[in-house]
Amino acid sequence: MALIVQKFGGTSVADIEKIENVARKVIKTKEEGHDVVVVLSAMAGETDRLINLVHQADNEPDGREYDAIISTGEQVTVSLLAIILKKLGFAAKSFLGFQGRILTDQAHKKARILSIDTKILREELQNGVIVIVAGFQGVDKDNNITTLGRGGSDTTAVALAAALNADRCDIYTDVDGVYTTDPNICSKARKINRISYDEMLEMARTGAKVLQPRCVELAKKYEVAVYVKSTFTDNDGTLVTKEDKYMEKEVVSGVTYDRDQAKITVVHVPDKPGVASRLFTPLAQHNIIVDMIIQNASIEGFTDLTFTVSRKDIKAAHKLVKKVAKEIGAKNVEVDEDVSKVSIVGVGMAGHSGVAAKMFSALANEGINIMMISTSEIKISCVIKAKYTELAVMILHEALGLSKD
Amino acid sequence: MALIVQKFGGTSVADIEKIENVARKVIKTKEEGHDVVVVLSAMAGETDRLINLVHQADNEPDGREYDAIISTGEQVTVSLLAIILKKLGFAAKSFLGFQGRILTDQAHKKARILSIDTKILREELQNGVIVIVAGFQGVDKDNNITTLGRGGSDTTAVALAAALNADRCDIYTDVDGVYTTDPNICSKARKINRISYDEMLEMARTGAKVLQPRCVELAKKYEVAVYVKSTFTDNDGTLVTKEDKYMEKEVVSGVTYDRDQAKITVVHVPDKPGVASRLFTPLAQHNIIVDMIIQNASIEGFTDLTFTVSRKDIKAAHKLVKKVAKEIGAKNVEVDEDVSKVSIVGVGMAGHSGVAAKMFSALANEGINIMMISTSEIKISCVIKAKYTELAVMILHEALGLSKD
Repeated sequence: MALIVQKFGGTSVADIEKIENVARKVIKTKEEGHDVVVVLSAMAGETDRLINLVHQADNEPDGREYDAIISTGEQVTVSLLAIILKKLGFAAKSFLGFQGRILTDQAHKKARILSIDTKILREELQNGVIVIVAGFQGVDKDNNITTLGRGGSDTTAVALAAALNADRCDIYTDVDGVYTTDPNICSKARKINRISYDEMLEMARTGAKVLQPRCVELAKKYEVAVYVKSTFTDNDGTLVTKEDKYMEKEVVSGVTYDRDQAKITVVHVPDKPGVASRLFTPLAQHNIIVDMIIQNASIEGFTDLTFTVSRKDIKAAHKLVKKVAKEIGAKNVEVDEDVSKVSIVGVGMAGHSGVAAKMFSALANEGINIMMISTSEIKISCVIKAKYTELAVMILHEALGLSKD
Repeated sequence: MALIVQKFGGTSVADIEKIENVARKVIKTKEEGHDVVVVLSAMAGETDRLINLVHQADNEPDGREYDAIISTGEQVTVSLLAIILKKLGFAAKSFLGFQGRILTDQAHKKARILSIDTKILREELQNGVIVIVAGFQGVDKDNNITTLGRGGSDTTAVALAAALNADRCDIYTDVDGVYTTDPNICSKARKINRISYDEMLEMARTGAKVLQPRCVELAKKYEVAVYVKSTFTDNDGTLVTKEDKYMEKEVVSGVTYDRDQAKITVVHVPDKPGVASRLFTPLAQHNIIVDMIIQNASIEGFTDLTFTVSRKDIKAAHKLVKKVAKEIGAKNVEVDEDVSKVSIVGVGMAGHSGVAAKMFSALANEGINIMMISTSEIKISCVIKAKYTELAVMILHEALGLSKD
């Protein structure tokens, strides 16, 4: 008998019929003799409906009140599943953030889980109850409702699996698993059977939508085996786990892309100590996440500094940077929202020379100009013009040998 | 400076524009120098939408899970109002049942408020914060969400006014106040300026929709002055308060009706001690509320017993009563769902003879047969055929002198 956490996303609980389908999957696992903790997202579209409603009230709503509203989506689905499981004769009980004592910090809209008091949930499990936990939400020390940000339900599931020392965390979604690239763009994309935490993390960070980086980080930290599979088929999924001998030793495992990129260049910056700090501290203070940063070699005491942020942050970032640029005597600030990032990821990359060259050549052969480059041990990312995104993904998938049959 | 509780119903918060209107009313009171506690219902239609969703999952849903879902309607409106008030520059904060410590019993779907820990709310008020409390919901001692039943937001408002020792409880709704009868049926209906708790209670119990009996009971118990008025006009409303010299000493204050009636007759019941108890105990155990009960004088050791219940309960009641009727040797059980109840209410009635006779004559003159009669010190109710409801209301309003200009 194992303890299994099963998380179902928004499309898996989009209506009562689909929730009944989820109930059948949960019951199957329960009847195999396992303890089951279920984590649910809101019905597909519901969170967007609620966000839209909030934004009708105020474009920059108070975080505490925003979270109280947005969290209702999961509040509805967990109770609907409990009702259906009870109707089918199984003991089941829903838990909201404040009931499951999912304690978070106070960073509304993107709170981090600090602790989970598993005593209450364990008691229910010991009594044979199927425990259903609202994903995406928690409560801070003052009993304010918090939410974890998009993809937060996956984080809830992995955090619960870690806290309960579960044997496995199943992430049920609307795709079959993790692919070598987005199958919607590249028909030759292949499903990956096993992938290491590190590779999955880089893929998530560079744009793979199937899992959020925070969720993978947490899984890696607590060594939670995460199994990503489809709610709607019985196909095998992808196991995200420690690097092991069963993994295919690919040089490159996947090609990812991220359209949510915007580029800011601060031109002709005096190359003095403290300049970067003065530019980036205000951004951090305003919770603007900076992705890639490139600083050119200094010429005659001046340099250009380029970085990327999420498109939603570009206006705020531009405003902050313009102010500092003036103070430090930079020439001007240029903004380009028409960019995207393509990346290749693979643990085998470190031991193989020539992968970067292969990537750059493939892009050059199609006349795609590379604006920025950033690398890690197991990843190379290039910023390019947004219109070339699909083309770049397809040619890189081919050039790096991922399009095997 | 006073402390005023203001409650706004579903039609008053039906969309963002209407919530902005509510915000303006709240701000007006705040700017007059008062402390304000706001209680809100869910957006009009939202609770029904949620109930419908739950019933798609199960016709007889688990009460705990039902309440968790249904309570989300108020969760959304209170935070929307807080967001709008903050946007307009006012400190405001929403409180859900578990946050305001509105402690109830464990009777899901119709919980009763046991206590409110006002310490948290008082602290906020002292800091000048407009406190916004979700109506209709509470939390039991085990942190389960409970709801108070329909009209529960009024009850929340009055309970808060009592607990905080507020100077007044304003109930904003979509009508101008309490009328002598339903203006939709009788164009000569007049608004009542002041009405006593007892009269209001009888009117609510006999069908007046504007306030729920529980809310009025609570107001009476704690002597909370309740002022019912329209959100959408500046017309004066109705003050529900202790009987006082300013009240018009009407013999009859109002005519009410209740279509939600169904009649059960147990025919030829052996007239023995304990029979009524055996009939009504199972109904009570199944939470079926019995309204009127009539037992005819016994003839040759047998009697007929007639009572009314809400139409939604008629099937369950019939089933329970049939079982007992067989056991106690009654002849048979008859059900009539085609009935309604008309009532006249007035504190002056006790001192005036002939009011009952006037009522019965007025009905007889139109050929309306009276099936059951029930009286209290300040009320007379008659069960009649449902199709005569409007006619009875109009002629009684006229006959009892309420249709003054």
